[in-house]
Amino acid sequence: MPIVEAHVLEGYAPEAKRRLVAALTDAVRFVVPAPDEAITVMLHEHAAANYARGGVTRSPAPALPDPAELVLAYLRAMEARDLATAQGMLGDGFAMVFPGTGPMTTLAELVAWAKDRYRFVTKTYEAVEAFPAGGAAVVYTRGTLAGEWPDGTAFSGIRFIDRFEVTGGLITRQDVWNDLGEVRPR
Amino acid sequence: MPIVEAHVLEGYAPEAKRRLVAALTDAVRFVVPAPDEAITVMLHEHAAANYARGGVTRSPAPALPDPAELVLAYLRAMEARDLATAQGMLGDGFAMVFPGTGPMTTLAELVAWAKDRYRFVTKTYEAVEAFPAGGAAVVYTRGTLAGEWPDGTAFSGIRFIDRFEVTGGLITRQDVWNDLGEVRPR
Amino acid sequence: MPIVEAHVLEGYAPEAKRRLVAALTDAVRFVVPAPDEAITVMLHEHAAANYARGGVTRSPAPALPDPAELVLAYLRAMEARDLATAQGMLGDGFAMVFPGTGPMTTLAELVAWAKDRYRFVTKTYEAVEAFPAGGAAVVYTRGTLAGEWPDGTAFSGIRFIDRFEVTGGLITRQDVWNDLGEVRPR
Amino acid sequence: MPIVEAHVLEGYAPEAKRRLVAALTDAVRFVVPAPDEAITVMLHEHAAANYARGGVTRSPAPALPDPAELVLAYLRAMEARDLATAQGMLGDGFAMVFPGTGPMTTLAELVAWAKDRYRFVTKTYEAVEAFPAGGAAVVYTRGTLAGEWPDGTAFSGIRFIDRFEVTGGLITRQDVWNDLGEVRPR
Amino acid sequence: MPIVEAHVLEGYAPEAKRRLVAALTDAVRFVVPAPDEAITVMLHEHAAANYARGGVTRSPAPALPDPAELVLAYLRAMEARDLATAQGMLGDGFAMVFPGTGPMTTLAELVAWAKDRYRFVTKTYEAVEAFPAGGAAVVYTRGTLAGEWPDGTAFSGIRFIDRFEVTGGLITRQDVWNDLGEVRPR
Amino acid sequence: MPIVEAHVLEGYAPEAKRRLVAALTDAVRFVVPAPDEAITVMLHEHAAANYARGGVTRSPAPALPDPAELVLAYLRAMEARDLATAQGMLGDGFAMVFPGTGPMTTLAELVAWAKDRYRFVTKTYEAVEAFPAGGAAVVYTRGTLAGEWPDGTAFSGIRFIDRFEVTGGLITRQDVWNDLGEVRPR
Repeated sequence: MPIVEAHVLEGYAPEAKRRLVAALTDAVRFVVPAPDEAITVMLHEHAAANYARGGVTRSPAPALPDPAELVLAYLRAMEARDLATAQGMLGDGFAMVFPGTGPMTTLAELVAWAKDRYRFVTKTYEAVEAFPAGGAAVVYTRGTLAGEWPDGTAFSGIRFIDRFEVTGGLITRQDVWNDLGEVRPR
Repeated sequence: MPIVEAHVLEGYAPEAKRRLVAALTDAVRFVVPAPDEAITVMLHEHAAANYARGGVTRSPAPALPDPAELVLAYLRAMEARDLATAQGMLGDGFAMVFPGTGPMTTLAELVAWAKDRYRFVTKTYEAVEAFPAGGAAVVYTRGTLAGEWPDGTAFSGIRFIDRFEVTGGLITRQDVWNDLGEVRPR
Repeated sequence: MPIVEAHVLEGYAPEAKRRLVAALTDAVRFVVPAPDEAITVMLHEHAAANYARGGVTRSPAPALPDPAELVLAYLRAMEARDLATAQGMLGDGFAMVFPGTGPMTTLAELVAWAKDRYRFVTKTYEAVEAFPAGGAAVVYTRGTLAGEWPDGTAFSGIRFIDRFEVTGGLITRQDVWNDLGEVRPR
Repeated sequence: MPIVEAHVLEGYAPEAKRRLVAALTDAVRFVVPAPDEAITVMLHEHAAANYARGGVTRSPAPALPDPAELVLAYLRAMEARDLATAQGMLGDGFAMVFPGTGPMTTLAELVAWAKDRYRFVTKTYEAVEAFPAGGAAVVYTRGTLAGEWPDGTAFSGIRFIDRFEVTGGLITRQDVWNDLGEVRPR
Repeated sequence: MPIVEAHVLEGYAPEAKRRLVAALTDAVRFVVPAPDEAITVMLHEHAAANYARGGVTRSPAPALPDPAELVLAYLRAMEARDLATAQGMLGDGFAMVFPGTGPMTTLAELVAWAKDRYRFVTKTYEAVEAFPAGGAAVVYTRGTLAGEWPDGTAFSGIRFIDRFEVTGGLITRQDVWNDLGEVRPR
Repeated sequence: MPIVEAHVLEGYAPEAKRRLVAALTDAVRFVVPAPDEAITVMLHEHAAANYARGGVTRSPAPALPDPAELVLAYLRAMEARDLATAQGMLGDGFAMVFPGTGPMTTLAELVAWAKDRYRFVTKTYEAVEAFPAGGAAVVYTRGTLAGEWPDGTAFSGIRFIDRFEVTGGLITRQDVWNDLGEVRPR
């Protein structure tokens, strides 16, 4: 125990079902200290014709995209300076905060701000964590930064963590913390 | 849809059941874009005598403590310099990393390191997020720091984020990022 | 087969559960020609704390009153000329049609119309049928009428049928057919 | 809540499943005042090999025909004076009662009786209601009659209601009430 | 997997539920080579008011007695020559066959037959196996016999096996095999 | 009642499912004195992708062979003196005990012992009973023996019972009792 049974409409892709099973398993582990082999999840798939709410049959909504994949694609686009692609992944009301900045709402603002801070930066990821949180998904990425200061000297191994909120398949919030301020030349 | 049924042994406190229901609801929302009122969770509680694995009846393990509560209690103890209480909340292999430090394994190390960094610091919390992640729980706290620099001048409104791993009801890892390095006098 | 499982919140009275079981059994019989002993209904009662929609636990709404009982109480009140009690059982937009009348909306209208038709009338019930029909309940009562014509001669054994609509525990429609027109003196 | 799960053998036509879902939904609405979107019905279809009573697997009985369709087909046949077709829809022990008649058991009797009552009659339907009731289905049709009196004068807009009992796919009882007696010339 | 859910009426004693869980677990093991910790059995107990077949609620029948206990009590009574008690445990149509006998239907017959065979005999049980088999339970007891031959010499360690059929809580059949014939003096 | 639901992974052959349903039905009958038509068993088959323990999906293990079939094949091979085939059906640690022998561990031992006992023997089966018993299956075969004594005279109608233990699809134990000792010439 526990045993979790989830009834879903037929038609979700194997990957979506795999993520649902993992999320339900984790939900149990969060509260119940059962050994892994005692936590069972069963998905029951129902044909649309066999399920009704208020007497009305329903169609399955397409599964939400994996928010971790979405965030990584966004970060890759940013690192490649492909702002158009990155912009297309942002939702209404998007805002981002970087160390020492106030909220910025456009990628252009970010680029302008970063120009004086470093010539370029690349990320090495140590971990990506995606979680449900109320109606949204939260994604944390962390690892280290490498790049060049404006004066051309190199840096590397500097810790960072990014926090993203994803709603309806779009990024609506990015918060960034890192140790650049500890070490950058001033 | 979806409808989630979770079978658990009788005996969990209302608070634990509430957390389990919330975690299962969030697990569904993570993958399936159903409206809230269409996501149903039912807990089925079973008397120990009515449940067997391998023919052997089982007793319910006590619910895991809320990891968010645990982390906040730890942070309160640290802020009050009650190191003994804080130490009692740490698990085997505990390590922590702060901006500009390598891994530290004892609270004494942390106190020694911080002495040169600020006279004191207090935290204002904006959010606490706790998630299941594999066998562990992950807790993120974020908000702003206020305090005094070693020279006695005050600071405030400086962003921070802490990440904790909680296993078996004990904290095993703390990672800290903040913007102190952006602003501290050097 | 079929086996019907109904999950309801704890707290319904035995009588309400009995009516629910009967209605579910009849629903199956309506479509599936299984022998009676093969139609099984199980009610699963869930404590309010063990059931959530959208992460929110719910309280059971009080069961709807038995519409057959409501209609019979109304008819008893009418036969006893207790118009105040009968009026209290009528919902907004109530209308009634009797043989040869158009729609009447008040009991006073009915009484005025009936005065010229018979001195009094009593009903003997052969059957009362109550059914769900969309959001409303429908109740049919049928049997025979006895009473006295305006000239004082007696009549009896005259067939009638009444149809009622009940919504939210109040009568919103009454339609009456009978054979008085076949036999009454003109 | 409530959530209804019905286990049936595989093989019912979509239309039969649709009627079963509707009947189960109505059964719940009859007793529990839940909003429509909170009433969920799930059909679980089981392969015959996966279901046994007393250790014996079972085949699904063909669904019962929609009794409303059956009654309407009978009434159409009667209106078209196609007595042979109508007769084939009647079950053992069939009886019918019309205004002012005793029980008649053959359609020929009905035709003979009606001859003196009107030259012909056609029905305009306002509603057809079909309900399960114990082992039988009950169908009510109501609306208005139009036609010609024996003297050739026309009538129309005269209310009627018919009640049918349907058992095993055949009509076993018909009861008719109408307002012809209120208005027919005598 | 597999997971077995058994719905039973409330009111069975813990011992009966324990036997039911064990029998269901064994039933799975008989066909599916799952490791023990993967075979889960859940009993769902339903209040009598929450369960209906054909619309009729049901009371739980008292559990059948453990047939192994019944048979052992019978054998103890026989060994103590308490024929009255043993007789009370026999059902209609009881028959028994011992090595070299035809069917005997009364305990008196058995006693008469045994008189020439040994002065007395006692049983040491190695195992008692009770199984369901169609509507009846089958019990096998096996072990060794010790006692004295008619001439007073002792014997011991002689293998036996008894097979019993138990129906409705009474023994209806006993078959005995043993190695006495291999060794008894002739 | 009772109703048994067994959740298994998809892929078991009809014959294996039939045996599982029969074993579950018998398990119920063993404890609950319900009439046969009130004992319902439903198998729910789950696609491997829809079932996880500890977050890991599982493949169905092939069903265990019918132990009764296995034992009968072994006995046929022995009667045909096809020792190689019979040997292949024996598991590690196999032992057998016949009337008057100690434990024998090879078929060659058995053949050597039997040589002095009878020229040949054939079995007529009255019944074969197979049961789950803990992790193993137990099979009992009983009936009568016919054959020839070493001196060439014939015998027949002599009762026997064999008990087998089957683990992991191989025979690990055989115990034999019969009445040969009662009648054989000495």
